[in-house]
Amino acid sequence: MRRFSQDFRSELKELMKWRRDVRHFKPDPVNPELLQSCLNAFELAPSVGLSEPWRIVRVCTEQARAAALQNFQIANAEALAGYSGEKSKIYTSLKLSGMYDAPEQLAIFCDEATPKGSGLGAATMPEMRRYSVVSAIMAFWLTARAHGIGVGWVSILDPDQLHRDLNLPDHWSLVAYLCVGLPQGDTLTPELETVGWEERDPGLAHWIEV
Amino acid sequence: MRRFSQDFRSELKELMKWRRDVRHFKPDPVNPELLQSCLNAFELAPSVGLSEPWRIVRVCTEQARAAALQNFQIANAEALAGYSGEKSKIYTSLKLSGMYDAPEQLAIFCDEATPKGSGLGAATMPEMRRYSVVSAIMAFWLTARAHGIGVGWVSILDPDQLHRDLNLPDHWSLVAYLCVGLPQGDTLTPELETVGWEERDPGLAHWIEV
Repeated sequence: MRRFSQDFRSELKELMKWRRDVRHFKPDPVNPELLQSCLNAFELAPSVGLSEPWRIVRVCTEQARAAALQNFQIANAEALAGYSGEKSKIYTSLKLSGMYDAPEQLAIFCDEATPKGSGLGAATMPEMRRYSVVSAIMAFWLTARAHGIGVGWVSILDPDQLHRDLNLPDHWSLVAYLCVGLPQGDTLTPELETVGWEERDPGLAHWIEV
Repeated sequence: MRRFSQDFRSELKELMKWRRDVRHFKPDPVNPELLQSCLNAFELAPSVGLSEPWRIVRVCTEQARAAALQNFQIANAEALAGYSGEKSKIYTSLKLSGMYDAPEQLAIFCDEATPKGSGLGAATMPEMRRYSVVSAIMAFWLTARAHGIGVGWVSILDPDQLHRDLNLPDHWSLVAYLCVGLPQGDTLTPELETVGWEERDPGLAHWIEV
């Protein structure tokens, strides 16, 4: 059996610790070959029935980027209106998206109607296709960070509006909008913890038994 | 910035290549401390608004295991009935679940109503909570494989039935049923590819531009 060393396992844990949701990017462009090399991690992800339902859309044009940014701004204003007091103050101070400065932006979709895999494993849980896409995003995220490239996942978006704005096939559904670039900083602590929004609870990694 | 070496990156890619969806397990028990150590990777996963909505259920009792296995058997028979010809023949030959022999079985749920994170990032895309759970499963899966432990994700299940059978809180939803143990074999090729069900298509890791 192919073995992995204790040194490698320690470094893998370090990689997971240093992986952050990045929202502050340097303006430097990302080498497109390096970006593709990191995206090749998608091929190594698990997918239900080998359906590989991931569809990667590189958001390049000014028009597409402006539509995505406006989408975020509207959803973010609506979200802010739902908070009051201290939470509202903190929310206002947060930078929840790197869309203003990330040199690369990727919209990742799931092809809900792909014939690939012939539906195996997705009959009772069709959401497995979207979960396969998330698995691939994680493989990409870790690979990118190992190359010093930061990734931030924006979910404060109206997915239907973005779908219309980007003019993509009907049977594709948005899974993630990713900002990609060189991070301005590097920290072991999630920004939401630093600003006092929420703390991590390691106890949640413990099981209950049935 | 914390850097990772080229050697580490190569080995990370190897890990992703050797990660398989394992369905054939040795009967040997998994050391519970090692299992917990691998599950600690959940703490290092991204989660929307730091909501950490993962809930890990270790399926131990004979009753709970029997209910889960029966659930799979019914869903699998229904799925088989949907195929004909060559696909039906291949489907019959597949071992689609390690539930018969995996020494450890984990049902992973998402707490859809967790107050943790105060809903940040999940207003327009509440599915982000489930995606956070999938991210954590991937972190666990890679960590387990780095320790020589195999993981198989069973999705041929009626999630509502399993939820009732395991008698868990209403606001928890099933994301994955994982079989965990020492794999009987080790291969770079997915079983579905070996038996001719489906092939991988590296071209899907390439972007389209908008």
